[in-house]
This record gives sequence, structure tokens and C-alpha cells, in this order.
Amino acid sequence: MPRSIQKLALNPQRLFSANKQVADIASELYQEIKDLPIVSPHGHTDPSWFNENKNFQNATDLLIRPDHYVFRMLYSQGISLDSLGIPQHGDKGDLSLYKTADPEKIWQLFADHYYLFAGTPSGYWLDDTFSKIFGFTEKLCSDNALEYYQEINRQLVLPEFKPLALMDKFNIELIATTEGALDSLSHHSAISNTQWAKRVITSFRPDDVVDASREDFVENLRKLADLTGENTQYWQGYLSAIRKRRQYFIQHGRATATDHGHPTALTADLSAEECQALLDKCLAGESTEQEQELFRGQMLTELAGMSIEDGLVMQIHPGAHRNHNALVFDYYGRDKGCDIPSNTEYVNALKPLLSKYGNHPNLKIILFTLDETTYSRELAPLAGHYPSLKLGPAWWFHDSPAGMLRFRQQTTETAGFYNTVGFNDDTRAFLSIPARHDVARRVDCRYLAELVANHQITKQEAHSLAYQLTYGLVKKAYNLN
Amino acid sequence: MPRSIQKLALNPQRLFSANKQVADIASELYQEIKDLPIVSPHGHTDPSWFNENKNFQNATDLLIRPDHYVFRMLYSQGISLDSLGIPQHGDKGDLSLYKTADPEKIWQLFADHYYLFAGTPSGYWLDDTFSKIFGFTEKLCSDNALEYYQEINRQLVLPEFKPLALMDKFNIELIATTEGALDSLSHHSAISNTQWAKRVITSFRPDDVVDASREDFVENLRKLADLTGENTQYWQGYLSAIRKRRQYFIQHGRATATDHGHPTALTADLSAEECQALLDKCLAGESTEQEQELFRGQMLTELAGMSIEDGLVMQIHPGAHRNHNALVFDYYGRDKGCDIPSNTEYVNALKPLLSKYGNHPNLKIILFTLDETTYSRELAPLAGHYPSLKLGPAWWFHDSPAGMLRFRQQTTETAGFYNTVGFNDDTRAFLSIPARHDVARRVDCRYLAELVANHQITKQEAHSLAYQLTYGLVKKAYNLN
Amino acid sequence: MPRSIQKLALNPQRLFSANKQVADIASELYQEIKDLPIVSPHGHTDPSWFNENKNFQNATDLLIRPDHYVFRMLYSQGISLDSLGIPQHGDKGDLSLYKTADPEKIWQLFADHYYLFAGTPSGYWLDDTFSKIFGFTEKLCSDNALEYYQEINRQLVLPEFKPLALMDKFNIELIATTEGALDSLSHHSAISNTQWAKRVITSFRPDDVVDASREDFVENLRKLADLTGENTQYWQGYLSAIRKRRQYFIQHGRATATDHGHPTALTADLSAEECQALLDKCLAGESTEQEQELFRGQMLTELAGMSIEDGLVMQIHPGAHRNHNALVFDYYGRDKGCDIPSNTEYVNALKPLLSKYGNHPNLKIILFTLDETTYSRELAPLAGHYPSLKLGPAWWFHDSPAGMLRFRQQTTETAGFYNTVGFNDDTRAFLSIPARHDVARRVDCRYLAELVANHQITKQEAHSLAYQLTYGLVKKAYNLN
Repeated sequence: MPRSIQKLALNPQRLFSANKQVADIASELYQEIKDLPIVSPHGHTDPSWFNENKNFQNATDLLIRPDHYVFRMLYSQGISLDSLGIPQHGDKGDLSLYKTADPEKIWQLFADHYYLFAGTPSGYWLDDTFSKIFGFTEKLCSDNALEYYQEINRQLVLPEFKPLALMDKFNIELIATTEGALDSLSHHSAISNTQWAKRVITSFRPDDVVDASREDFVENLRKLADLTGENTQYWQGYLSAIRKRRQYFIQHGRATATDHGHPTALTADLSAEECQALLDKCLAGESTEQEQELFRGQMLTELAGMSIEDGLVMQIHPGAHRNHNALVFDYYGRDKGCDIPSNTEYVNALKPLLSKYGNHPNLKIILFTLDETTYSRELAPLAGHYPSLKLGPAWWFHDSPAGMLRFRQQTTETAGFYNTVGFNDDTRAFLSIPARHDVARRVDCRYLAELVANHQITKQEAHSLAYQLTYGLVKKAYNLN
Repeated sequence: MPRSIQKLALNPQRLFSANKQVADIASELYQEIKDLPIVSPHGHTDPSWFNENKNFQNATDLLIRPDHYVFRMLYSQGISLDSLGIPQHGDKGDLSLYKTADPEKIWQLFADHYYLFAGTPSGYWLDDTFSKIFGFTEKLCSDNALEYYQEINRQLVLPEFKPLALMDKFNIELIATTEGALDSLSHHSAISNTQWAKRVITSFRPDDVVDASREDFVENLRKLADLTGENTQYWQGYLSAIRKRRQYFIQHGRATATDHGHPTALTADLSAEECQALLDKCLAGESTEQEQELFRGQMLTELAGMSIEDGLVMQIHPGAHRNHNALVFDYYGRDKGCDIPSNTEYVNALKPLLSKYGNHPNLKIILFTLDETTYSRELAPLAGHYPSLKLGPAWWFHDSPAGMLRFRQQTTETAGFYNTVGFNDDTRAFLSIPARHDVARRVDCRYLAELVANHQITKQEAHSLAYQLTYGLVKKAYNLN
Repeated sequence: MPRSIQKLALNPQRLFSANKQVADIASELYQEIKDLPIVSPHGHTDPSWFNENKNFQNATDLLIRPDHYVFRMLYSQGISLDSLGIPQHGDKGDLSLYKTADPEKIWQLFADHYYLFAGTPSGYWLDDTFSKIFGFTEKLCSDNALEYYQEINRQLVLPEFKPLALMDKFNIELIATTEGALDSLSHHSAISNTQWAKRVITSFRPDDVVDASREDFVENLRKLADLTGENTQYWQGYLSAIRKRRQYFIQHGRATATDHGHPTALTADLSAEECQALLDKCLAGESTEQEQELFRGQMLTELAGMSIEDGLVMQIHPGAHRNHNALVFDYYGRDKGCDIPSNTEYVNALKPLLSKYGNHPNLKIILFTLDETTYSRELAPLAGHYPSLKLGPAWWFHDSPAGMLRFRQQTTETAGFYNTVGFNDDTRAFLSIPARHDVARRVDCRYLAELVANHQITKQEAHSLAYQLTYGLVKKAYNLN
């Protein structure tokens, strides 16, 4: 599909609506908040970048191979993962395919199919990155692929493209990475004694020691015992071990939040005897899927209790069917763009946890969803009532201009703005962070502008809300003040 | 969160869209219907107001304490129910907290947090009420809270603020209250012999004698027996007793409709023997949740049969998980903003009832939902086919500008306009009734204006439809002509 | 409900949005694609029309009686099917009611209630047909009903209203009908040797030999055996018989696609022994509903395997609760507007099929839905990853201006445009085909125009995409090149 070369020029009014009145108000609101620092309390960047501060290598390794938003689209159009240099693994894998994949050829292949991204957030972020960070003035296409590749690589080795230089350039006040419960936090510890300690923090994600469906669960509990000196075969010892790791994350990684990626939002409130019996089964490898689900659900309630003790903010992200494509999982492993959202229920699922702790003043839970039908039906009514609940922003597939707008349109009337928590970029694509936050700011300003133009709020309220949505609420929600 | 004082001025074009062409057409349509009388066929005002015609007491007792839309938002932001003067009850309750709550201090607390309501329907209705009914020209905030409080209280004792005077001022042609099956209808009976008989009517809501999960179910059936002389331990006697109460509501309360607030839309069509067996279990206190559900489902079908006999219009409101917050329920009781919508299924649930009665020309059922996903998927297709089914308006949490617009956008193409029934305010907040109906009129005009501007209907059609949506359809649907 | 006569004039800018900037861009895009040929790869027109090329009879028989979109709305407002001349059937039926229904009176009844269609796609298509095909300049109403009826009938007998003349007039490059697995394809065979062979093709819809819940399933398998010489009581013989019929459809009907209308999207991957056992039960009439569902699910996987062999594109249409109205089904039979969408799940349902074949380069599956909640939650993520999956257009009840717009708004950001397949009219209403395709073209141009106006894509991209959405993608998806 040949394309003639098109100009790449970001319009200052982009995403502000086709309606001139709305766009003008949105623009006015945006001017006041566009330069506020980026606060990124939830993401998946690599802490070694900030500790070691080495330059990135090449355009393909930085922008294509790690970004499953990008390669899932290419794969959906019949482009093999091998040809994109995605490494195979395990018994079945053929690593030679990966090793012989030439980054320059991969970049060309990507450029040849860049038209597929029209109208998608990936296309938007990439254009923004190409224009604002690298200074391109032509849209990427087959004809200029090589030129793009060489120019990006030329810039990547410059001192101003080191990770910490980019932190300043991007005006990132704080970034939180995410580490598993067994992580040593070596990079975060090293950062502790530098001026970056306040700007680079971790989050505690204990899925590896909570999810008994994982192949490595038993092994992980053994490691957890080793790290903490607790006997993790006993329910109380297991809980104590997790408490200790939370303290470790607070002390060595300055964590203010935890993160829980469960298949569903199920919670439970069992007796200690039932918990021990369930743990026994899980450790013996004799648990059913239902028992594993119940174990995870019980643990959400336990973790909420721990949050009341130590003040960590709890993030719950349910609803992804992980690794749906069995063949891709077998050959290429996790996180290859094969996670598919599914129907998610919150009202009954969260009741055990909420009945136990939902009214406690020390508890703060941020709920996310991949099921947009829950915005108006379940999440906004829950967050608009329970003092412990707040709504995370439009997440993952819905982290897009239309997705973010639907989030506001479907939650604000019941939950208001103050039960939301600002924006999460949730990304491992470091260069896309400014573009992602900018999209959120633009869409929020547009939403507020529509309310102003429709005489539902005053412009004075809109200015105040734009500040809150961009900066105020995230700092408060994640205890970052 | 201090705020400088803002002007309060309702823009005449509010809610008409940011698009000037749409707003102009909407405005033209609105001019023709804005002064039509209010018909309120479904709500929860107190019939004593209209019988006794006493002045309301103070701003807090009128506008905050009874309005769970208002205090649920405040509670979600950590403001205790005690500090808002919500009375505790039962064994655990501490009534002293309620008794010592000073209405003026509650009002100040409310004003201090009024910014939370930005973008919510509560905020919109309150601003409308403050401006149009009380004449305020500044937006409520911390600084003017006392002034507001005193001015509202000053006006409330005036003769023109008596309920019947407000009925005329608000141009309410008819208002229907809602009473349980055992209610004596003393106020409605007293009104019978006055000129207000045609303007104040009741609706028959038999949940108290149909829902066997209630603690008072057995006691209620005993009372039902006493009131009717029927033996409510026998299935036929029980049904006869309900038939008699329907007649009582028609005769003494001029009821034209019934109302059924079930957890789900389940219906059933059992044999008389199965019904008797189920009733036996429910009366013996030995019924499971499933059996209680089946009993309610069977009763919906029975009640549809009774509607065919006596002509009462049937309203079915499923889908609320009542009293979700166990702690609030234990201490403060029902209707404290803790009802949460949940996933609701209609297609299979209604089939037994519809297979038995769905084509009967005497039957009229109005369906409501808290699950917006059913608008286009289930409700519009059902109402666009079955002659007995009509769609109630956007309900409860969705009774808002964006919620109402989604209702029209997602039902009209399949069900048309004539399978809908106009607007319900469904409120106990008497002063908000004009604002709520005005929102519905504005949003309907906006929706029609978009169809006109997009050349999908003619302006002549739009004028006719605006009249129908405001006045014609509700009168026809509820047999009020 | 009397109406004064209104002008009927189709605005050239209809459906292009009320926003002038968007409408202008949409108009510019539309000018370039409006005259592209119609490709209709999925529909229910009668192949005898194209083989026999006889004139249609009268307005009522052409436009009302076969169109369940039309008579379901009339029925929902209390107009009996008998009065519309819908024939009863079977033991209970009274055919005399049908025989005495006067087409002219039916037309008058329809015209008297034409106002019910305001804002519906049926109303839009009919106005388009009346204006563009028959040249009317007044909107249909009670007063001009007879004039309309006579004028339509006058034109229908003209040579330019023969089906093949209309194919040219409508600029239909290709139309696919849909036939059951046992169909002789007599009309398609006859067309084989004419110049129309490339323009009139069939699709293979084997529901009659796959759905064991049908009363005629056993009889159908016997016929299948007779037609193919295979023993359909044996699993392998049954599969071979279906393979032979697919070849027959390819050879005699030039089929490029299959079509599967199942209640759910369930698929399965059973052993040959399990399949034989299931077939045995189904043939013995001893299968439960669950077993029938499993059988259909297994067959979807088998049929996908066959598609890999013979290259037929697979269309899966799940989610309709067929013949919901028991009374209408008993008296009037299938396809009487009583099919109601229901909640549909894809992620788990499709997993067995996708695990087996989802990454195969020869497989192409087009997914449809009646449950709009799956657009962003399940279908776009699935199609945005699996190379075998594509998204069919907004379908059936959602085949409307707002429905099509929601489809684009909720799928594009995750699946892009190139995982969609253009428009399907899916209709038996031949005269409405140009109007339906025109709606899709207008709505797509509007959606693209909004992206341009919002600076999310360039106008150059929009032009290219408009071509793809109208013509390029459908040809590629259905292997029509």
C-alpha cells in the first residue's frame, strides 16, 4: 500500500473538538495546565534506566519490540512475530529467528505498515513522539523509513537522551515503577541516596506470591520465606512475610501504593482455618481454579487490611484474560499483546472486602476496569458512595481520546470529579509518556469545555477542575504530598 | 478548599448543546413546550404534604437530610453521616448524635463541600432551585452559607411555600405518590373530597407483601389478611387479598399504576400447586434465596394478570443491589444512598410473563433499568415488538443530562419515540421537581434538534414529538386522560 | 393522529453532523466515494429475482409484508399482524385472514402510522426509497396513501423495475444471497452461464444441518446423506458430506463465504469419539440443550478447519434469541420480528477454535454482534490481535446512523480500520439496498471527518480510508478480487 509522503505537523488545537466554541474554551483551559509537571504514579518503566542512566540503543529496540500495542496490530494483519524480532523462548522456541532479525529491516516493515495505525492511540503517540521529541516534519512511511531510523539512532546516543535528562526534559516530577514482591529493589535502593530518590519510586505488586495458578507459586513462597525469615506454609507466617515485604518496599523503594492484577474483582472474607486449608491446597498443587480464585479474593481483603495498617494505597486492576492466544504464549511467552478484556463484575465481587473495611478512614482503593459498561452501572455508584473507593482513569485499551472521553461522560454525573485520581500512563514506553499525559490533559480540557459551553459548570470551576484532574488529585490520591 | 464567590445565573440556553445550530433549534422547540403542565406519574413525595398543607421547616431538613443523592456524595468524601444529622437506628444506633446535629452547622458543612457537585445532576438541580425558587444570585459556597440558610428558612414559612401553593407555582397538573400494599391511604382518602383529588394520586407498590426476603414478610401477610378478610396462607386467598388492595388503591387513592422494585426482572409461570408450596415455604421461613426470587418472579406474572383485569399500568424497576453497605445499613437503615446498580437481564427473565400475557391488548408494562447496556441490546428490541411493553425514562443514577441523552440515542432507532412514556422524576425532593422536568424537556429538545440538524426528521415532526415527549405520551401511558 | 402533508426532500448534507466543519469535510469525502459500486457480500434477497427477472407485484407485498423492521414497529403499537396481511400457518393458523387482507388497505394502515418511524432507520430508508427511486416529493401520510400506492404500483411494472435492471440502476457490482446447506441452488446454477454469474453469488449457511435443536435436524441429515452419498450417521461421513456441499456451493453458486447464525459464540474442540457420541445423541433425539449447544460449538471449529482447506470466509453471527414471542411463533412462524438480542460473550467462547486455528494464515473469520458492549471490550481487542479475525459492520438493530457511529467510535482505537470489512446490508428488502449502503457511506465519512476536524488523521488519510471502508476492504475480506 504505497503512500506519498505527508507532512507531519501537530495541530495546537488537536483533540479539542470540532466545535469551535468548545475548542476555544478547551484551549484556554489547556494553556493553564499544559506545563504542569507530570506525575506518573503507575507504570512499567525499567528502574535500571534511572539508576544506570545509559543511553537507549536503537529505534527498533526502543519503540517497536517492547510495545505490544504496536506489534499486536502488525500481527493482526498477518505480520509474523519472528519478522518483528520478538524472541521465542522455552523448549519450542527458535531463538535464531530473533537473533537474525535485523533492527533496520524491522523498522522498514513497521514503516511499510504505519498506515494501519490511523485513528489509533499508538499512531497518535508515535506521531507526537516523532514530531516533538525527534523533530520530524514528515509522516513516517516506506519511503522515509531509513532516514527516520538513522536520525532516531543518531539522536538516541546524545547526552540529552539519557533517561535522567529525559526526566527533566519531559518535566516528570515523579515516576513510579512496578516490582514483584520478591524483587530486591536494587536499582531503587541505589537511587535512595541520590537527588532522584523523591522522583523515582516503586509500587508493590504481589501477584507472584498471591496467585496460586502460577507455575512458580510454590517456589515463590519458598523465596518469600527466605527473604523474610517467616514460615510461609502457615497462614499467619505467610501474611507476616507479605507485611515485611511491604515495609521493605516502603523503606527501599519509597512505595506509596500496591498494585493487584487479578482476573476478576472477587474478594472474600474467610476464617483463619479456611485460609490455612486453602493455602495448604495451593501449596500442595491440589487447588482447583475456583480455589485459586478464592485464594486471590481472600488475599485482596487481607491486603486491604494491611493497607489500613501501613497506609499503602491499593490499586485493583481486574478483568484481563491473560495470554489468550495459546500458540503465541507457548512460543513467545507473556505480554505479547494477547491479553483480552472480559466482562467484569464489581458489585457482588467487592462486597466481602467492603463489608469488612469499606468504611475505614485509612483505606484508599483505586479501581480500574477494562469493561466500560461498569463505568456508569457499577463503578461510579460505588465510588460515589464508599469513602474508601476512588476511580482510576480509563485504562489500557481505553487509554485513548475516545476512551478517556467516555470515562468522563459515564462517571462524572454519579461520582463527580473528586472521586477520580488523575491520569496513569501505565506504560513501559518511556518516550511516549509526555504524549500520553498530553492526551489526557487535552481530553479532560475538552470535556470540561463541553460542560462550560453547555452551561453546566462555570469557567471558573473548569479552571479549578483542570488543575485538579492534571495535578491535584493524583498527588492526593497516591499520598504524594 | 476555599472558593471565591461566583455568580449564579441560569443561562437560558443551558443543556441545548455547544453547537449553535442545534442549540437554536432546541431553543425553538423548548419555547413551545416549556410551559406545559408537569405530569409526575411516579415519585416518592409524602402525601401528608398535600393533605395537611403545612410549611416546610428548614433548609437542611428539606434539602439535605432526605436527599440521598446529596449525602452519598458527601459521605464518599469522608464526611460522616452523623455530622450530616442522618439518624442512627436500632440496637446499635446512637440517636444522640442525630439529636445534637445542628441544622445550621450541617448546612455550612454542605456549603463547604458544594464544589463536589460540579458536573453532577444534584449540583444542577440545586443551582436551579436556588436561583429560580429562592432567587439567589450567588453560587452557594462557604462564605455565603449562613446567608443562604437564613434566606431559605425565611421564605419557607411564607404562605406561597405551602405544598399546595407550590403545586400551582410549579404548574404540576398531577403528582402520584407511592404507597405500600398495607397503607391506609389516609391522606389520599382525605384528599378525595377536595378539588385536589384529580391532582394527587397514589400508586400501588406491593413489594412488602411480595418479597419474602423481608424480615416483615410473614407479619405483612397477616396484616394483609386482616385488612381484606382473606386467608393469605392459601395461594388463592393471598391473590384475592392483593386484588382487593388494588381495588382499595383505585377507589381511595385513584391509583392508575402499580410499581415493582425487584432485584431482577425474573418472571415465572408455575402451577397453582407449585405456587402454594412456595408460599408455604416462604411463610414457614424456610425459603432459600432462589425460592424467594422465584416467588417474586411468579408474582410479577400474577400481577400482570391482575393488571389485565383491573387496568392498572405495571411499572417494573429491577436491578438495584439494595443496602450494599452493610455497616451503614446496620446503623442507619434503608435508603441511605447505598443501593448499587448491577448487571440486569431482561430477555430470558421476562419470557414467562410475556409468553402468557405479552400480546394481551389490556396489558401495559413500563420497563425501567439501571443497566444502560440493556437500552439498545434488550429493552428497545423488546418494546419495539411487544404491544404490552413500553420503556420508562432514564432512571435514578441515569436521570441526568448525559444519562437522558444516552437513553434517547440508544433506544430511539429501534423502539421509536412512541414506545416511550415521557419523564418520571421519581423523587422525594419536592422542590427539585420543576428542575428535573426542565432537564428532561431541555435534553429531549436537544436530541430532537440534533436529528433535525442532521436532516433525520423535519422540524414539524420535532415540534410534534416535543409535545408528545413532554405531555402526550405520559398521559396516554399512565391512563391519565 | 392526523398529520398535514409535509415536503419530502432529501438534504444532500444529511447524516453529516450538525457541526458545519465536520459536515463540510464529510461532504468532500463523500463526493469521492458516493458513486463507487455497491458490493453486497451478505444478504437475503431471493435468487429467483435475478434468475427469472420478473417485475415485483405491488407496494404492500414489496415494502411491508416482507420487512419485519416495519411490521414489528406497527405490531408494538397494537396493530394486529392479521390486519397487515401476515399469513398464519400450521394447525392453529387461519389463512382466511391473510387471504382477505386487501393490500391497498394494508398500505393505508401503514401510511396512517408512518409517523411511528420518525428517527428510526426504517423511516430513513423508506423516505430515501420513496424520494430517490419513486420520485415522491411529499412525505407519506394518511392523506396521500392511496396516491402513493397507485404510483408505486404503476412504476413497479415498468421494464426499468425488473430486478436485473435495478441491479444496474443501483450500481450493484456484486450481491450474495444466503442459502441453506440442502439448497439445490437451482437459480444460481441457471445464472452460471450468463453474464450475471460474477454479480450474483450465494453463501453457504449450514445452520439447518448443524443445529440439532431444530425439529427438522434428523430429517435434514437424511437429506444431506441423500445429496452427498455419505453416511451422515457417522461423524466422518457427516463432515465429508458438509465438505461436499461446500464444494457444491463453490461450484454452482460461486460462494466465497459461509454464514453461521448461532445463539452464542461457543466453540469446542472435542475428540472424534466425543463427537460421534454427541452426534448419536442428537440423531436419537436425546440431546439436551447443553449438548445441542456443544454440538454447534464443535461444528464451528470443524467448519473453521474446512475454511482453511477450501478458502471460504467464515461469518459468525451470534446472540439472537430467536422467536421470543411464543404466540407469534405458534401462529405466524419464524422471522416475524420477534428475535431479541441478548448478552453475548466471545473471549472464552471462541478460545477453543482460536487455540486450534486462530493463527492459521488461510483462515478468515468475520465476527458480528448484537451486543454493542462487546465492541470495545472483546471484539476490537480480539480482532486487533488475531490474524484470522475481522470485525463485521454494525449489524441488524444497530445497522442505523447512531449504531454505525458507535461501531466506529468503539472499535477503531483498538482494532484500527483495516481489521474491519466494509458494509453488509443483510437485507431481503431489495429496494432499500442503495439507501442502506448510502447511510453507511455517509456515517463513515462523518466519522472520518470528525477525526480530521479533531486533527487525529490527515485529510489525505481520510480520503484513502473512505475508499477502503466503502470498497477496498469488502473486496479483500470476502475474497472478491
